[in-house]
Amino acid sequence: MPAGELRPSAVPLHPSSPASPTAAASGDEAWVWAQIKAEARRDAEAEPALASYLYSTILSHSSLERSLAFHLGNKLCSSTLLSTLLYDLFLNTFSSDPSLCAAAVADLRAARVRDPACVSFSHCLLNYKGFLACQAHRLAHKLWMQSRRPLALALQSRVSDVFAVDIHPAARIGKGVLFDHATGVVVGETAVIGNNVSILHHVTLGGTGKACGDRHPKIGDGVLIGAGATILGNVNIGEGAKVGAGSVVLIDVPPRTTAVGNPARLVGGKETPSKHEECPGESMDHTSFISGWSDYII
Amino acid sequence: MPAGELRPSAVPLHPSSPASPTAAASGDEAWVWAQIKAEARRDAEAEPALASYLYSTILSHSSLERSLAFHLGNKLCSSTLLSTLLYDLFLNTFSSDPSLCAAAVADLRAARVRDPACVSFSHCLLNYKGFLACQAHRLAHKLWMQSRRPLALALQSRVSDVFAVDIHPAARIGKGVLFDHATGVVVGETAVIGNNVSILHHVTLGGTGKACGDRHPKIGDGVLIGAGATILGNVNIGEGAKVGAGSVVLIDVPPRTTAVGNPARLVGGKETPSKHEECPGESMDHTSFISGWSDYII
Amino acid sequence: MPAGELRPSAVPLHPSSPASPTAAASGDEAWVWAQIKAEARRDAEAEPALASYLYSTILSHSSLERSLAFHLGNKLCSSTLLSTLLYDLFLNTFSSDPSLCAAAVADLRAARVRDPACVSFSHCLLNYKGFLACQAHRLAHKLWMQSRRPLALALQSRVSDVFAVDIHPAARIGKGVLFDHATGVVVGETAVIGNNVSILHHVTLGGTGKACGDRHPKIGDGVLIGAGATILGNVNIGEGAKVGAGSVVLIDVPPRTTAVGNPARLVGGKETPSKHEECPGESMDHTSFISGWSDYII
Amino acid sequence: MPAGELRPSAVPLHPSSPASPTAAASGDEAWVWAQIKAEARRDAEAEPALASYLYSTILSHSSLERSLAFHLGNKLCSSTLLSTLLYDLFLNTFSSDPSLCAAAVADLRAARVRDPACVSFSHCLLNYKGFLACQAHRLAHKLWMQSRRPLALALQSRVSDVFAVDIHPAARIGKGVLFDHATGVVVGETAVIGNNVSILHHVTLGGTGKACGDRHPKIGDGVLIGAGATILGNVNIGEGAKVGAGSVVLIDVPPRTTAVGNPARLVGGKETPSKHEECPGESMDHTSFISGWSDYII
Amino acid sequence: MPAGELRPSAVPLHPSSPASPTAAASGDEAWVWAQIKAEARRDAEAEPALASYLYSTILSHSSLERSLAFHLGNKLCSSTLLSTLLYDLFLNTFSSDPSLCAAAVADLRAARVRDPACVSFSHCLLNYKGFLACQAHRLAHKLWMQSRRPLALALQSRVSDVFAVDIHPAARIGKGVLFDHATGVVVGETAVIGNNVSILHHVTLGGTGKACGDRHPKIGDGVLIGAGATILGNVNIGEGAKVGAGSVVLIDVPPRTTAVGNPARLVGGKETPSKHEECPGESMDHTSFISGWSDYII
Amino acid sequence: MPAGELRPSAVPLHPSSPASPTAAASGDEAWVWAQIKAEARRDAEAEPALASYLYSTILSHSSLERSLAFHLGNKLCSSTLLSTLLYDLFLNTFSSDPSLCAAAVADLRAARVRDPACVSFSHCLLNYKGFLACQAHRLAHKLWMQSRRPLALALQSRVSDVFAVDIHPAARIGKGVLFDHATGVVVGETAVIGNNVSILHHVTLGGTGKACGDRHPKIGDGVLIGAGATILGNVNIGEGAKVGAGSVVLIDVPPRTTAVGNPARLVGGKETPSKHEECPGESMDHTSFISGWSDYII
Repeated sequence: MPAGELRPSAVPLHPSSPASPTAAASGDEAWVWAQIKAEARRDAEAEPALASYLYSTILSHSSLERSLAFHLGNKLCSSTLLSTLLYDLFLNTFSSDPSLCAAAVADLRAARVRDPACVSFSHCLLNYKGFLACQAHRLAHKLWMQSRRPLALALQSRVSDVFAVDIHPAARIGKGVLFDHATGVVVGETAVIGNNVSILHHVTLGGTGKACGDRHPKIGDGVLIGAGATILGNVNIGEGAKVGAGSVVLIDVPPRTTAVGNPARLVGGKETPSKHEECPGESMDHTSFISGWSDYII
Repeated sequence: MPAGELRPSAVPLHPSSPASPTAAASGDEAWVWAQIKAEARRDAEAEPALASYLYSTILSHSSLERSLAFHLGNKLCSSTLLSTLLYDLFLNTFSSDPSLCAAAVADLRAARVRDPACVSFSHCLLNYKGFLACQAHRLAHKLWMQSRRPLALALQSRVSDVFAVDIHPAARIGKGVLFDHATGVVVGETAVIGNNVSILHHVTLGGTGKACGDRHPKIGDGVLIGAGATILGNVNIGEGAKVGAGSVVLIDVPPRTTAVGNPARLVGGKETPSKHEECPGESMDHTSFISGWSDYII
Repeated sequence: MPAGELRPSAVPLHPSSPASPTAAASGDEAWVWAQIKAEARRDAEAEPALASYLYSTILSHSSLERSLAFHLGNKLCSSTLLSTLLYDLFLNTFSSDPSLCAAAVADLRAARVRDPACVSFSHCLLNYKGFLACQAHRLAHKLWMQSRRPLALALQSRVSDVFAVDIHPAARIGKGVLFDHATGVVVGETAVIGNNVSILHHVTLGGTGKACGDRHPKIGDGVLIGAGATILGNVNIGEGAKVGAGSVVLIDVPPRTTAVGNPARLVGGKETPSKHEECPGESMDHTSFISGWSDYII
Repeated sequence: MPAGELRPSAVPLHPSSPASPTAAASGDEAWVWAQIKAEARRDAEAEPALASYLYSTILSHSSLERSLAFHLGNKLCSSTLLSTLLYDLFLNTFSSDPSLCAAAVADLRAARVRDPACVSFSHCLLNYKGFLACQAHRLAHKLWMQSRRPLALALQSRVSDVFAVDIHPAARIGKGVLFDHATGVVVGETAVIGNNVSILHHVTLGGTGKACGDRHPKIGDGVLIGAGATILGNVNIGEGAKVGAGSVVLIDVPPRTTAVGNPARLVGGKETPSKHEECPGESMDHTSFISGWSDYII
Repeated sequence: MPAGELRPSAVPLHPSSPASPTAAASGDEAWVWAQIKAEARRDAEAEPALASYLYSTILSHSSLERSLAFHLGNKLCSSTLLSTLLYDLFLNTFSSDPSLCAAAVADLRAARVRDPACVSFSHCLLNYKGFLACQAHRLAHKLWMQSRRPLALALQSRVSDVFAVDIHPAARIGKGVLFDHATGVVVGETAVIGNNVSILHHVTLGGTGKACGDRHPKIGDGVLIGAGATILGNVNIGEGAKVGAGSVVLIDVPPRTTAVGNPARLVGGKETPSKHEECPGESMDHTSFISGWSDYII
Repeated sequence: MPAGELRPSAVPLHPSSPASPTAAASGDEAWVWAQIKAEARRDAEAEPALASYLYSTILSHSSLERSLAFHLGNKLCSSTLLSTLLYDLFLNTFSSDPSLCAAAVADLRAARVRDPACVSFSHCLLNYKGFLACQAHRLAHKLWMQSRRPLALALQSRVSDVFAVDIHPAARIGKGVLFDHATGVVVGETAVIGNNVSILHHVTLGGTGKACGDRHPKIGDGVLIGAGATILGNVNIGEGAKVGAGSVVLIDVPPRTTAVGNPARLVGGKETPSKHEECPGESMDHTSFISGWSDYII
């Protein structure tokens, strides 16, 4: 079964010709939501066993915010934190800040473009724990910024239980971010993640000890961090840099270079590191640097 | 307390003298199911607090398929995917393909033989998330092959939420496979896993980027992959090979050799790698290669 | 937003001047419980949306044991293992052994002192899956020691499903232990963890194969094990030692030394390893050894 | 709002021209099930908020039996009697006796024809507790006849809790029976109810004391029993008889007569009771006998 | 224990001196909601075991509508009609018509004034199934009037399951209505209930058969209907009339008269019925008419 | 099928020859609990589908109190009143007053002796809503007497929702009371029910209006009240009296007489009422008085 069939390149990922940037943003959200509804309708028709699920999570809702608030409320609730309470909280938080929904749309698009296994927007919306954990974080972060910290921390805990993704609500995360597979991701309190970053599962952006203060990594725009990479301390991963799977990084990585290994080294060497042109956070090229990794041979 | 007492070697793991291979397979399933019921009955008598659990999950059922369909339905259900729906789906899928149950029996036996902490078949059936995630994958894979893809993907997502094990429904997995501990395992869309493979937790069989097509590892029969190993790309791990814990592998590993480290190297060197005789996926020997790992010293 | 504000150093972590050690222990528990109630009361007042949660989990209970039994019962229950059954079991187990609650208090204090993101005792009690998984393990271990093994194994399985933390009920764990973030931690059957140890997420204390018997690591007092470290086999990690993030350790690590890398090496070299004075399990210093790690450069 | 609009007389209630009685019965069930699906599809399209409910209860099922087993399993389950267990039990019981489904179809038709508030078959199937309680009774009665008495009694209890309808599983109930509104109906162990009977809410078919044996009413075909009527003891209510609302009956009522009042008297007098022609259980005429009830005046 | 102590007459039931009728209405709602919150706060402080319940249902909400939508959503939900869906639906419906909340306030006041067992507004809001069923009906009626009939009927069914109160969504109900105890109440499709009516449990306002059209009772303002009374057909119960417990009424009852018995007769006789002055729906005088009921003697 | 087979008279209902009254009481409880366990064990063996239910509700518990607390906690819980909270509350309340359990035993025996459909103690314990509602009332009454009124009222409300039985927590109820079928029973705040009383479903012991104070019926020892009877006001039903089904009683009924009809009259006439010898509350003779009811003829 040719996997490529799943995502025919002919499927458009954007509405055509927006008139202005602002209208484009808003039109873009409407277009993605319309796509999601069309996908869900098609799947509900083809698969009656899934129709109830698709109607309750997507097709009965009038907007992406409401669908997300419903889905997250039902996923994150517990016997002591009721779904109705969470749903209400999420709806109110979404309506307090339109950028939350815009970021969700950018994240949906990121998954759709970068992950070959992502066959549709609705697949990501419903099934990607990385996407859902990220949106829950965005909501928790908003609450944190409103000084509703105990509530934000309770959400972080629910996300860690339900999705095995542990992002401190104070962490700042840009738009168009893809957490692929996502299990085991840990992001600390003072971490910052730029736009268009791709982070695989088991990645840690951790602190350096028990000292307070600014102690977590800063990840530049367009960075790609491979599965199981551990980045510790207030270090900079420069824009467009790549961190190989399983790497352990405790020192800054310059822009557009590649760090690999445990301990991590720059591909091409510390003094003359290879520089790549493309944006790895978007190209998701995990392995083409092998040839440049001099001692990587079996 | 001598842990060895938990699994007296005198406990038989097979029925005696099957008449023919086919009868053997079927008789084997019956024998394992009879063992499971006997174990559950013994435990229910000894521990009334657990009896309700054992009756609902095992003792009230007439076959292993029904018990598994029930247990998985209750584990994987959510407020929007009801247990009755999943139970029904699983029952129907099991009855559409007898090899699903045969594979489950082989997996039960694999855990019982290879994992010293596995004190009984029923312990594995009820409590091993690796076993349960693998059976849920087998069901999802069957649905995938029947072109019921949105349903298969929804199951993948539930398994990832509930067990923190993320196996794409298109991945092909052989029989007698042990996912030990299992948390954090990620298996990509075009990955193939052979028979009698043992895979520890946090293992990734991942892709190489955003390109579509055949992009995930192929794991030969009898391979052992240690905890936290990351194998990326369409590479072959030859039959009987061993991948050490924490290794990062991006190139083929020849049969019956051992790859360790990040970046991974062959024990014995690239040119003259050591070759072992036994089947590590079954012997589960994680550490005897230390002596052969020349620079592994503290 | 200065993160340091979250945990003003002026907050006392101990009651003042206990009269005698025994009274101190008991008074200490009472003092911590009083702190927890005061924190919950303050948060309930400030955040009505969280008040119901805080009352049901903390403020309606007369002791830390009851609060923990309630919270764990509700977190770990499933459709086939009811919350009332678990609550009852936990209450009875707590009352059978006062050291269980004392250990919980020590663990709360460990999180509060060592983790800069831990803003209050109640935050840890309610939201830290590492803390909750550890207390569930202590209860399961007690059951294991009472030969109620099937019940203990069922609890292990629930903890692994719910928290993605897999600790065999036979493992022995000291007091004042911090499992930070905790997702993906695996601790095998014959492992032993000393007092005042700090273990980050994705850490494995694993076995060496399918042989039975004593086959898991022994972790000395005051050890710090970084994120993603894998320690395999019946090896000793000497007291006060430090294991770097992502390390793979298969040989003993001497006391107060630091092992890093995959394969792990001692900082300072095998023959003349650097020795540190402080107790890393308490200082949580993950990264200051960088300078000593000779080839750790980017 | 003219209520009559709800049930346009033009809606056909039967398929046209069945070839033979047997084929008719089977064809009738298929026709009703097709109607139900069409109604549900129409409602799901018109009301997205209800679509998830309609898909999970009706549209995802391949037969009326499966839909009923699912709906009853979810309605009658409790934390100690799981929905999956009940669903399985109901499916198996339905498949063991095709007359159970035929009776359900007859009951659906009875509600549709006799109750002006019954706007569709699907409305009855989903929302009429009298219909659902009756089908649950039919299933419990089957179990009773198979000597599975404790299970049958547990079902009776669940129906009494959930629907406030208490029918002993040994009671025998004919086809085409309408329990309208149904709350508070009590039917004793040795009661018998004929075909085409209509019974309003709060009706009691009770016993006469603590003596064992045949001690409950026998209700003939086509009887109508008004709201709140109490019929006690092994008495016969003759075919086509009518028992007025609130009546208390302890003696036989002859066929096609009307008993009213507390104590009940025959309309027309004991010696020369009025006899009506029509079948009141089908005509549902509750009140036209007023004129014949000589002293009924205000 | 003097029951009277429960409801000291000194407790004010109204805010003092509203400036204008409109302001009064709105101010009245605000005043009642403030009372409810104060009562809940007092009870939460006095009874920690109930505090979680009181916070989740009342104290965490910003308005009576939200509290009611939450409480009803959680009470009426099922595994196939999620609480979040109902909550959303109820919130939207409340906000579409302010008279729904005004009616709820009038009903709360009716219970508080007329029922000696009603110790507080919050007691009624949380615990009175008659009150809750009536508010759920008001919401369902609104949906019915918006031609969302399948949804309205599904709500009716849930109310009948959960509260054993069966009110057709087309029925029209005035303000200040008390359904006391409420179990078993049945109100038909074309029934109309006026303002300030009090209806005890087991009361039926039923139809007359299978004919469509206007076929249910019309209950005037201020009527009192005793427990178990059955009123059938399109009859008028005149304003201020009283219907005795257990009465069966099939003919009009003139204003301010009393009908008792089965069959019902007017107290004082058909020609010269006694007329009372007060409004029985408000005075709740069930039994003072005994002396006028000539043959009521034991 | 001879119903009598269900309850062979040979089954003993009491332990043999207790030494002393006190020992008898305590021994009696132990004996009944032993019977219940034996019955449940027998049923679990015969019916695996029910075994899980029987183990969780009965066989896993060490005493009747714990079994009842568990069963009621699970039956009465809601999403805002957790089962663990109720279980804890019930356990504590049972242990505060041993007479609560003694009353439960007397009620179990009453059902077993008086109700021919009650085939075993365990059937009553698990399945009789009248029994369960009565025990929940006893617990709520205890709380009421401890001035925990909001909690007692919340329980009353849950019992009314779940069992459709509405008993004010202030009402006083004797021992050996049978609420048969129970749906629709309403018992007011100042009502008193003696020992060995039997009350059928839909019975109201109601008040007289909105006046406060002592306003509900007082039911003497050994009284039998038929289905649907309504007794209103502070009237005495003398010991051993009988109230016919559907009767409406507003005046005292002398001891050992029978009141029937609406309005109720004494059988035998007001001046010379028939007096019966036996205790109708225990004999459950509902209908033998027919011959004495002069105008009861059809």
